[in-house]
Amino acid sequence: MAVGLKKLQKLLPVNGVRLSSAAAGIRYADRDDVALIAFEADTVISAVFTQNAFCAAPVQLAKTHLSKTSARWLLINAGNANAGTGAVGLSDAQACCVAVAEQFGASVEQILPFSTGVIGECLPVDKIIDVMPTLKAQLSESGWEKAAQAILTTDTVAKGISEQVQINGNTVTVTGIAKGSGMIRPDMATLLAYIATDAAVEQSALDSCLKQAVDFSFNRITVDGDTSTNDACVLAATGAIKGSALNAQHADFTLFCHAVQRVCSWLAQAIIRDGEGATKFITVDIEGGRDSEECLAVAYTIAHSPLVKTAFFASDPNWGRILAAVGRAPVQDFDLNGVDIYLDNVCIVSQGELAADYTEQAGQAVMKQSEITIRVRLGRGDFAEKIWTSDLSYDYVRINAEYRS
Amino acid sequence: MAVGLKKLQKLLPVNGVRLSSAAAGIRYADRDDVALIAFEADTVISAVFTQNAFCAAPVQLAKTHLSKTSARWLLINAGNANAGTGAVGLSDAQACCVAVAEQFGASVEQILPFSTGVIGECLPVDKIIDVMPTLKAQLSESGWEKAAQAILTTDTVAKGISEQVQINGNTVTVTGIAKGSGMIRPDMATLLAYIATDAAVEQSALDSCLKQAVDFSFNRITVDGDTSTNDACVLAATGAIKGSALNAQHADFTLFCHAVQRVCSWLAQAIIRDGEGATKFITVDIEGGRDSEECLAVAYTIAHSPLVKTAFFASDPNWGRILAAVGRAPVQDFDLNGVDIYLDNVCIVSQGELAADYTEQAGQAVMKQSEITIRVRLGRGDFAEKIWTSDLSYDYVRINAEYRS
Repeated sequence: MAVGLKKLQKLLPVNGVRLSSAAAGIRYADRDDVALIAFEADTVISAVFTQNAFCAAPVQLAKTHLSKTSARWLLINAGNANAGTGAVGLSDAQACCVAVAEQFGASVEQILPFSTGVIGECLPVDKIIDVMPTLKAQLSESGWEKAAQAILTTDTVAKGISEQVQINGNTVTVTGIAKGSGMIRPDMATLLAYIATDAAVEQSALDSCLKQAVDFSFNRITVDGDTSTNDACVLAATGAIKGSALNAQHADFTLFCHAVQRVCSWLAQAIIRDGEGATKFITVDIEGGRDSEECLAVAYTIAHSPLVKTAFFASDPNWGRILAAVGRAPVQDFDLNGVDIYLDNVCIVSQGELAADYTEQAGQAVMKQSEITIRVRLGRGDFAEKIWTSDLSYDYVRINAEYRS
Repeated sequence: MAVGLKKLQKLLPVNGVRLSSAAAGIRYADRDDVALIAFEADTVISAVFTQNAFCAAPVQLAKTHLSKTSARWLLINAGNANAGTGAVGLSDAQACCVAVAEQFGASVEQILPFSTGVIGECLPVDKIIDVMPTLKAQLSESGWEKAAQAILTTDTVAKGISEQVQINGNTVTVTGIAKGSGMIRPDMATLLAYIATDAAVEQSALDSCLKQAVDFSFNRITVDGDTSTNDACVLAATGAIKGSALNAQHADFTLFCHAVQRVCSWLAQAIIRDGEGATKFITVDIEGGRDSEECLAVAYTIAHSPLVKTAFFASDPNWGRILAAVGRAPVQDFDLNGVDIYLDNVCIVSQGELAADYTEQAGQAVMKQSEITIRVRLGRGDFAEKIWTSDLSYDYVRINAEYRS
């Protein structure tokens, strides 16, 4: 069902990163559902997490661990979010970290736990601990694809991408994987995304690189407006490519950041292409706002409107629903008479009215496509913002009505 | 499909109000789709309209007419919203008002136009004008039920209610009708609702009575978060019951306001019970907030969450989705550890965790009901708010995917 998203291609290994996966039987039969990512010593790690006040036990523990020391291992399970599980959930997440630490003779703070899946059920800790020897034995630089598979929940396609750039005369690789399909409206973070590079990067530079990349990728997508309790995105720089570490002053730092940005954007858009029940990949492009905030307010009001989303599902150029959504966006002193709306290059609303030369046939032709851009010109200023979303189909309802059964 | 909503019962006539309806063939075959409501001279009228910046031609014209003189006739059509129709839409609405004015030898400002239906198509003015003689001839004090039918769009049941109270020793009648099923998240107004009373009420008292009644009824409901372009609610006091007019100082004014409030609440809840695709009628009851705003913010975040709504459709006590929605509500310094959640009287979350004595069986039993209250105690203060919503079903998607076809 994923819109314009191919089967996962071969990913480029990143020197200093090994991955493995195993089938713990947490929720799914006959598939891997736990992944381990191991970094060489001295890897620099940056991470962002969900801003949902109801944040899951593994998120809480990962934040605590990160504040104490640098992480070397990421343990990720699918099928159970270990969220809303209180003190038991925290000690369960802790127990999993201890099991990893014991395998590698490491301290427990060097392990970051991540969980995704159903909320409010206890984590089957024993099942996860049972696969530790397998996870350790299978670690491999070429484990990216299997790890990308192991972390999926309602996703239909594994998501990963690699980029290479020349930094300091060396070829630097950036590889990332992500999962996420529903409960997608990341807020300062994403669902689960893991990106690694063999470049050497200073901590503060890596933090700002990740923050910026996330802001314009994972923080610009929405499936259903529901911010997850478990969102997390990790960027690791192993420094396997020797040489002076990149910092914000380095001539090639922007080049590096753009590579990370491309990986994040591709992954974020892949999540929308594989959004629950998605049949359309929709870019919402707002121009002419007085500031970014009002552009984003209009964009999300459109992207969250059930009426707009069902119109896209039906391939119905129901521009009235789009204009009604624009009209109810929280924008000060909003004069709709200055608004233009385009479906791709077809002008459908001009100055707040149905465009004189618009034809239903032209609108229909665009709506029938699987990839569509709604462009709204507010005519109030010079700011612009862009977000990505999917449509609302029977399958979204089916998937979420059946999720726990 | 309407949840717990019976076929329209006989409504009580209101002295000084006559209604009629006719089949103009605007969009539907074999049914009335235009209604006329006529008030005796000296009727006091109060009205509130949509706050959507994209407001329909009839809304604009009705506001203009109201600012000039007191209204005597309301002309309502279903099947076409006359919204997003620009200057043509305004002159079409004007032409309809002129046609009414000519029938009754009235001035055009005495007529208020209302339209509901598809957005962005031109109003078939001629069809409406053609039925004017019929509308005039059919006017009757017992026309409430037929008018309630004529204004429907995707509604499955006509909605109306009557109340009587003793004021000044007289029996005062309040009768109201409303329509609305989708694009329902009224903002300072509702979809179309018409309420009349034979009491004599001063203008300012009537205005404050309507504002307060709407605030706690139509402004507390949501189907899909989509505020309509055509929302309007009218309260008319004919004064047929002679005697000094009610004002805010009158001993019985509160009694009268409560009667109007009961009519508005019943109609607002009827709209939710008949929400597009609704299989559940859900009361969202928030307690313990620091102010009304944060109670409403939490309530609407729950009521608009597609994941919560599909869980209700599936009768799945997926409390994690409710807690995740609560957690992403825009509330300052929000500590989820103080939050309790109940499904009816079943405590499902206690202090931010799954309640110790909760059983899936108990949660399931509540979720299988067609009427459910989610009660959330924020544990932060003394404010409380209550709103009403419906679930998200396959039929919501079907209805809105097929709406224009």
